[in-house]
Amino acid sequence: MAVTDTSLKRVLVTGGAGYIGSHVIYALQKTRRYKVICLDNYHNSQPKALTRLEQIATDALPEGATAADKASAIIDVHKCDLTQPEQIRAVFKKYGKGGIWGVIHVAAYKAVGESTEIPVTYYHNNVSATIFLLQVMDDFDCTRFVYSSSATVYGTPPKVPIPESTRLQADSPYGKSKVMAETIIDDLTHGTPLLYALITIVDEKEYSPTHEMASYLLAILQMAVGRVKDPVLKVFGNDYPTPDGTCVRDYLHVLDLAEGHLLALDALAPESKLFDNCPTEARYKAYNLGRGQGSSVLQIVEAMRKATGFDYKTEIVGRRRGDVPDLTADPTLAEKELGFKAKQDLETACRDLWNWQTKKKKKKKEQWTP
Amino acid sequence: MAVTDTSLKRVLVTGGAGYIGSHVIYALQKTRRYKVICLDNYHNSQPKALTRLEQIATDALPEGATAADKASAIIDVHKCDLTQPEQIRAVFKKYGKGGIWGVIHVAAYKAVGESTEIPVTYYHNNVSATIFLLQVMDDFDCTRFVYSSSATVYGTPPKVPIPESTRLQADSPYGKSKVMAETIIDDLTHGTPLLYALITIVDEKEYSPTHEMASYLLAILQMAVGRVKDPVLKVFGNDYPTPDGTCVRDYLHVLDLAEGHLLALDALAPESKLFDNCPTEARYKAYNLGRGQGSSVLQIVEAMRKATGFDYKTEIVGRRRGDVPDLTADPTLAEKELGFKAKQDLETACRDLWNWQTKKKKKKKEQWTP
Repeated sequence: MAVTDTSLKRVLVTGGAGYIGSHVIYALQKTRRYKVICLDNYHNSQPKALTRLEQIATDALPEGATAADKASAIIDVHKCDLTQPEQIRAVFKKYGKGGIWGVIHVAAYKAVGESTEIPVTYYHNNVSATIFLLQVMDDFDCTRFVYSSSATVYGTPPKVPIPESTRLQADSPYGKSKVMAETIIDDLTHGTPLLYALITIVDEKEYSPTHEMASYLLAILQMAVGRVKDPVLKVFGNDYPTPDGTCVRDYLHVLDLAEGHLLALDALAPESKLFDNCPTEARYKAYNLGRGQGSSVLQIVEAMRKATGFDYKTEIVGRRRGDVPDLTADPTLAEKELGFKAKQDLETACRDLWNWQTKKKKKKKEQWTP
Repeated sequence: MAVTDTSLKRVLVTGGAGYIGSHVIYALQKTRRYKVICLDNYHNSQPKALTRLEQIATDALPEGATAADKASAIIDVHKCDLTQPEQIRAVFKKYGKGGIWGVIHVAAYKAVGESTEIPVTYYHNNVSATIFLLQVMDDFDCTRFVYSSSATVYGTPPKVPIPESTRLQADSPYGKSKVMAETIIDDLTHGTPLLYALITIVDEKEYSPTHEMASYLLAILQMAVGRVKDPVLKVFGNDYPTPDGTCVRDYLHVLDLAEGHLLALDALAPESKLFDNCPTEARYKAYNLGRGQGSSVLQIVEAMRKATGFDYKTEIVGRRRGDVPDLTADPTLAEKELGFKAKQDLETACRDLWNWQTKKKKKKKEQWTP
């Protein structure tokens, strides 16, 4: 019997094979309410992550699973480069007008440092691609959009925990490309009464192992696996205006982060009534996802020590250029309006990260392992 | 004998058939130092403007004009849509690596009001297209870039006359698209040591007859030709913090504006030494072009009265949303570093505009008539 998915809402996830995207798909599949369409160019990911997701979702199906349940476990996979509008168009064409219920746009180039080296590539991948996607969505009457942004849009925030009302003022081309995308989406919701967009802003940079080596968490992780020759952990500055003087970050578990994206998508359904009493201008909302509680570098080192058993040696050195004292998110609005609540604490995050590290093969390419 | 142009520098002008672009080409041709390559999609212009430019330049050739002189009068015309990167690439390919000396990027969608209706189209045309152009330039070792920006990037400027150090804070999607393009160019000059970019920021909006009907100058003009049924000129607010209470603008003559673009291009030649003592980060400079002296609405009405002989009736009504009290540019830097000096006064501008209006055919489409 052919698998039918008529009761499922089709959701297109860009960058679905990547670290964040794959966890977003995992969260979507768990609901068994969505049919996931994955777009990825596998620039920094591999298709086998999607095979694994299908397996996990299929294994988790309850007894007496319906045809729709079974269909929700299977991903429609499209190799697609978002900088090629005709490729995006071909995917939408397959599902027809109104055929895709919503989009979660995760795909982006994400390395702050690299963005200063090849800025135009970043603007091309993060801004032009978003424009293309929005144009095709418009052509195919797809009106629900969740954009995965980044805490870097706030630059050095004047107030911590960071509320959504903070002015956008990024420092790097990467950050600026995210600000531009947010600006464009905001304007689009004014001009096109049909678009409903939510922006989920997450401090994901520090948490994703595929990102910059500069990330403390990754550096700390690398040490524990014995890859670092000189195992002295540099702490860049202990004279910041924070409790112990080291930089504070809001280390959100990637599963919580993925849950935040799912909740944002759910909120775009008519029954959520999120936009019911809003004027046209308010069909765009941003939500900061985070634990609302930051952890300092020294606290992270301590948590990682517990998770890995590795005896870290630290050395306090000078401040690093571009570091911001505190990037703790204020998730109050996300809690109130989306029902978001970070479930995982720092210890769990560190333990899972350690498991991820020890499980994954010694390859350069990332592999998704839940 | 075949026309040779080896002694000429090839300069690509985007939007060259449009109102500003055609005047820029006119200024370039007058020098007989440049070979103009014109890119235009004729969205808001016509190819015959270019034929006229060739005729004017050919007629102006001195006796004993060299082959190069003659070649400088002829424009290499390419119908090209800047939102189609392969079309840009095809043009650059024709001239080969290093074959194009510099680019003056004028092409853009320019109507503030329209930009709120179709924002994504504006971002696509003004931001994505600029990214495409910069990418292709990079591929073909073209490193000199003059970007024609707009005073609207300053939103409501905190200080008047407006210096280049003013923060960028546009209000409309059009203005924001210009800010984004400037931001991208700025970042690119950091990442790519070969690019030298100048931004010429002009308050061209109020002066170009093809722009919004909201423009006072056009409204005033329309009245004088008897197209307006109820010939009472509305003056939107006379309680602004300006000498006579009405809004003040820096009405720059389009020929001065074009001259400013030419000077910016000239300044990118090694012999100008403009960037010689600058660090890598300073290979990007912005210049505000203007007369440095604003004219109020009432002053403009008076000047147009003189130019047209039409007896204007004015009515003071309430302020118009989005209007900024004063947009007078501070051209000090452009004067000092580029040698820019607006030559035409307001009376000349009004007279020429009136000539342009009375000469042009009663067609909807704009025609370039110098």
